[in-house]
Amino acid sequence: MLVVMRHDASPAEVQRVVDTIEELGYSARPMPGAQRTAVGLVGNDGRVDSARLAALPGVRDIIHVTQPYKQVSREWRPDPTVVRLPGGLAIGDTEVVVIAGPCSVESEEQILDAARKVRDAGASLLRGGAFKPRTSPYSFQGLGEEGLRLLALAREETGLLIVTEAVDPDGVDLVAEYADIIQIGARNMQNASLLKRAGRVGKPVLLKRGLAATISELLLSAEYLLAEGNHDVILCERGIRGFDSSTRNVFDLTAIPMIKDLSHLPIVADPSHGTGRRGMVTPMARAAVAAGADGIIIEVHPQPDRALSDGEQSLYPEQFAALINETRMIAEAIGRGLAAPLPLPVRS
Amino acid sequence: MLVVMRHDASPAEVQRVVDTIEELGYSARPMPGAQRTAVGLVGNDGRVDSARLAALPGVRDIIHVTQPYKQVSREWRPDPTVVRLPGGLAIGDTEVVVIAGPCSVESEEQILDAARKVRDAGASLLRGGAFKPRTSPYSFQGLGEEGLRLLALAREETGLLIVTEAVDPDGVDLVAEYADIIQIGARNMQNASLLKRAGRVGKPVLLKRGLAATISELLLSAEYLLAEGNHDVILCERGIRGFDSSTRNVFDLTAIPMIKDLSHLPIVADPSHGTGRRGMVTPMARAAVAAGADGIIIEVHPQPDRALSDGEQSLYPEQFAALINETRMIAEAIGRGLAAPLPLPVRS
Amino acid sequence: MLVVMRHDASPAEVQRVVDTIEELGYSARPMPGAQRTAVGLVGNDGRVDSARLAALPGVRDIIHVTQPYKQVSREWRPDPTVVRLPGGLAIGDTEVVVIAGPCSVESEEQILDAARKVRDAGASLLRGGAFKPRTSPYSFQGLGEEGLRLLALAREETGLLIVTEAVDPDGVDLVAEYADIIQIGARNMQNASLLKRAGRVGKPVLLKRGLAATISELLLSAEYLLAEGNHDVILCERGIRGFDSSTRNVFDLTAIPMIKDLSHLPIVADPSHGTGRRGMVTPMARAAVAAGADGIIIEVHPQPDRALSDGEQSLYPEQFAALINETRMIAEAIGRGLAAPLPLPVRS
Amino acid sequence: MLVVMRHDASPAEVQRVVDTIEELGYSARPMPGAQRTAVGLVGNDGRVDSARLAALPGVRDIIHVTQPYKQVSREWRPDPTVVRLPGGLAIGDTEVVVIAGPCSVESEEQILDAARKVRDAGASLLRGGAFKPRTSPYSFQGLGEEGLRLLALAREETGLLIVTEAVDPDGVDLVAEYADIIQIGARNMQNASLLKRAGRVGKPVLLKRGLAATISELLLSAEYLLAEGNHDVILCERGIRGFDSSTRNVFDLTAIPMIKDLSHLPIVADPSHGTGRRGMVTPMARAAVAAGADGIIIEVHPQPDRALSDGEQSLYPEQFAALINETRMIAEAIGRGLAAPLPLPVRS
Repeated sequence: MLVVMRHDASPAEVQRVVDTIEELGYSARPMPGAQRTAVGLVGNDGRVDSARLAALPGVRDIIHVTQPYKQVSREWRPDPTVVRLPGGLAIGDTEVVVIAGPCSVESEEQILDAARKVRDAGASLLRGGAFKPRTSPYSFQGLGEEGLRLLALAREETGLLIVTEAVDPDGVDLVAEYADIIQIGARNMQNASLLKRAGRVGKPVLLKRGLAATISELLLSAEYLLAEGNHDVILCERGIRGFDSSTRNVFDLTAIPMIKDLSHLPIVADPSHGTGRRGMVTPMARAAVAAGADGIIIEVHPQPDRALSDGEQSLYPEQFAALINETRMIAEAIGRGLAAPLPLPVRS
Repeated sequence: MLVVMRHDASPAEVQRVVDTIEELGYSARPMPGAQRTAVGLVGNDGRVDSARLAALPGVRDIIHVTQPYKQVSREWRPDPTVVRLPGGLAIGDTEVVVIAGPCSVESEEQILDAARKVRDAGASLLRGGAFKPRTSPYSFQGLGEEGLRLLALAREETGLLIVTEAVDPDGVDLVAEYADIIQIGARNMQNASLLKRAGRVGKPVLLKRGLAATISELLLSAEYLLAEGNHDVILCERGIRGFDSSTRNVFDLTAIPMIKDLSHLPIVADPSHGTGRRGMVTPMARAAVAAGADGIIIEVHPQPDRALSDGEQSLYPEQFAALINETRMIAEAIGRGLAAPLPLPVRS
Repeated sequence: MLVVMRHDASPAEVQRVVDTIEELGYSARPMPGAQRTAVGLVGNDGRVDSARLAALPGVRDIIHVTQPYKQVSREWRPDPTVVRLPGGLAIGDTEVVVIAGPCSVESEEQILDAARKVRDAGASLLRGGAFKPRTSPYSFQGLGEEGLRLLALAREETGLLIVTEAVDPDGVDLVAEYADIIQIGARNMQNASLLKRAGRVGKPVLLKRGLAATISELLLSAEYLLAEGNHDVILCERGIRGFDSSTRNVFDLTAIPMIKDLSHLPIVADPSHGTGRRGMVTPMARAAVAAGADGIIIEVHPQPDRALSDGEQSLYPEQFAALINETRMIAEAIGRGLAAPLPLPVRS
Repeated sequence: MLVVMRHDASPAEVQRVVDTIEELGYSARPMPGAQRTAVGLVGNDGRVDSARLAALPGVRDIIHVTQPYKQVSREWRPDPTVVRLPGGLAIGDTEVVVIAGPCSVESEEQILDAARKVRDAGASLLRGGAFKPRTSPYSFQGLGEEGLRLLALAREETGLLIVTEAVDPDGVDLVAEYADIIQIGARNMQNASLLKRAGRVGKPVLLKRGLAATISELLLSAEYLLAEGNHDVILCERGIRGFDSSTRNVFDLTAIPMIKDLSHLPIVADPSHGTGRRGMVTPMARAAVAAGADGIIIEVHPQPDRALSDGEQSLYPEQFAALINETRMIAEAIGRGLAAPLPLPVRS
């Protein structure tokens, strides 16, 4: 940490910064410069709260050199985390996984139909919301526990593993009973109560980047999960807020190699939310895999024009089958391949 | 709502849009144009989910003419909402209220000291966090219920009403036992579980705008509260995310007259978070009042350089006293004045 | 400047950074830390190009402590610059100036009508575009030199000084023949050829902040003007790009106290472009003055519904007269007052 | 175009909108709704200036249905534009082209060394700035015409075609004497004087997207070129401004399929500026090709740690050779392949 003094800071003000740093248990190293003095804080373990220093008279700015996160960083753990799922599926290993399904679980017929179609095309995991965080109180909010039961039924029928969202701390335990991976959505990325509960539940967590979250903030939210003991964390880039309303979001694929550089955690990409437009999903799924994503999440609906939510960005099943073929070729071009679906459950 | 067709949409595709609109129970009005056809949906009551239409073949775009919120809009209720608090204090009426205090409740001594100082300077309400949502799991997370008790003690001592934050649904009831106004923070603006609980708790709610929330999204979050029956809602502009790291946020004061135009709800402004720099707080507090804010929220700490959080943006008590004088002059220049603190409690 | 090494940088890589810094003529100060080493560059005069250091192996990041600008900084010149105009008018002194007029000069009748009306209401300078930079090639591009002649005529009639835009290097000399202040627009803030020419022309320059310019970039563009010898520079905040399409721009008023802190140059604010909506102009003009602006620029058109450009944000003359009264009260509340128009020219 | 009235607009105000539309020569179609009336403008040829309508009393908003651009749109010309260059090279055809070279031309030795190395690796065009638009007046501004001569020399030696930037109208003609493609940089995307001159110069133009430009604004800038008669226009995505300072820009690859959908013009991507970090360039070059880019522009410097500009994002020649191999595999996976360099010039 570097404490930058105002150009007119007095020697006494510089000394007070030095004293405060030492009082906090670190070493101070003043660096007088041509324009101003800066004071280095040496020995930072990532937990120094800069507020006390920033508030001292004569201080202009605090510059963070040390990253504020710890267990999620590649410096803490150089080898990539591989999240291992039932049946031998893995996220973060060589093969790229495909997660697909409708935005919301709407009915038994709809989710079974969707599950069969995405499995036939080559997906390994089924997504679908039972609890839906919505911008408007008047929008469809999901089927709740009934939705979870239908997802479990779809797993029985197809062998697809289940990814579904929990929206509040109490919901985490309920979702964990049914799901293979618990999703924490973009709106809840900084919901600390939810993160803490998910950190203790014993199931892998898929953590989506918030609409206005920096990469550092995403990693700090993941740190909440690891700090509670849950190391099976998968990050997800799903688009950030931008100034151009012609796409719903800005799909920030550079976050993928960036996070690979900073952290050992696997990262997947969601081009459906990332672009918000059906016609952009396939090229951007290809691009995500080319950028190094460990998986992709695709909204597919058996009848997009009947969907209760997000119909405009859901693919038709035949578009999804084409997307799988194209992304497989990209994955192979970079030496990875797509993970195959688990074998169909044997019926007695 | 206007459904804009692709320029090469077939007559059958246009007809299907018309049929779907009518199936949904509304009237359709096709408008063939020089470049493309658009189909108007007439009779929208604000609850139409555009997804079904957007997913139809040949549709290029959906344009929303009707606002998606209802009870919060000025069209629903033309007269401004005045939130009435104990002791006759009101927010949204002629006088501008001042809410002040430290970022976090840290100790009895600190909060009583802060409360006395902000009251002496002229504040009417005391702010201070007992539950703190923090970006990092290693930052100070607040004193919890002990913090709430200390706030209630400060109210007894000074007569200041209490504003403090609830961070999860279960916490809402606890906070409501102690606070006069329940704050929902920026990170939780779209936490629907929290909003629903706060909508049923029977205390006024101060709802802060999320870092990347549009004005429409802020109003939709407020709609969650009104839809549950809580009409005592105060909005708060506290800075949005921008591209220039020289300030912590972009303090979007235009939101104040904008919201006054769209909604009947009162709105206050938080220049401490809005700017993140102590030196900017006073001029931007003046600007907020000049723009029409119904109140301001100011971080004040008896010893900012000892603060456990947000010290760099907290004012010294004497700076706060000067700020009060300057904003009073602005308030008077636009014919409003500052609300006086409630009388000191009489000791028996 | 601080060169932050990767955590796994070798001692040889650190040494190479030290050697390169010394080769560039500065001193190097290595700071080994708990997680990584950083190397301070001491003696930076603001001209070090960080590229050579950033490209060295083992370097993670370059952190700038010294500001890259020089002559515009308050550290270079502590006293505020006051730009003195003909007739004794001054920008950056105690009084707040009002610049007003239509977006474009459209005809003799229109500009004379506008000039008389804004003068009667209390403006001191007339704005109006003769050369218009437009997003679309099919939009009205201005009357060119004929527009300049009409502005000069309006000055003769009303005594108002003239602010008008130059859009290319060759145009600077032409505009300088007619105008009292040459405007450089937001789209051209980083047009170095234009800045260099305007730096040599001998007339004051009003430099508008670009839509996506940081404060530091705005100051660097001003530095181009000062570096060429033109010290009569007035900065202008006019709104930056944001994510919410409900206003045209985000009007970043915090830039005003921020720039006052960093630079000695005066700064004015343009709430017409800053908000893009007529109904927001008056409250945000009040807010700009409350935040410390040295002047305001307001679009006023005698008949906004007949304007060839920007009609939706232009005030009616009677709205402008009310605005002047409200901002005068704000200016007086902070001890400044509004500058009075120069006396009407005496006719022989 | 849809003119949305305020909910309390009077019938007379609606009628005035209808009359104004008809006065402008179009048809008006009022649509009374449950909440408010909207008036459709039918027959819009893309040239209606909305200002006159927006300024009418009772009008709340103008919604554009018709795109404001014309000749660049796919609706105007359904087949993709292929820009044909000397020697049979083409941009926008099946093969993906690679443009590479240093940020700036620094010396004969440097540019010849760079040219030979990028040609050996497989690039077809050489980039390098002779005129450099820089944020700071103290940064290296390029060698000027001497730089152009060195680029021409490099073309003679290697057969690489030349892409280099013009920064002002007078410079366009000079650059056109030496270059095969004239680049217009991001800072100048809305420099109308420059665009108009480049539209008349008779050489292909590479137009880079501005840092805060929407896709629609980029297309409107291209429309300036086509409107002057230059149809050989190549667009370029090079990163937009975002809120996360951990990368220099947000590389908006979704713009590629989006522009392919809206326009017939070819588009290339610049991952060097798009990410600003050497380690991100290769994965994002792969991603750009996977997303459908017609070419990539890569900064390569024979000695990045000696570069006078942008060294931190320049690749070492051996990194570039690896990048070429990886992107070739991606291009082949989507059925395109990389364009081969032109044959070496025959020496007499």
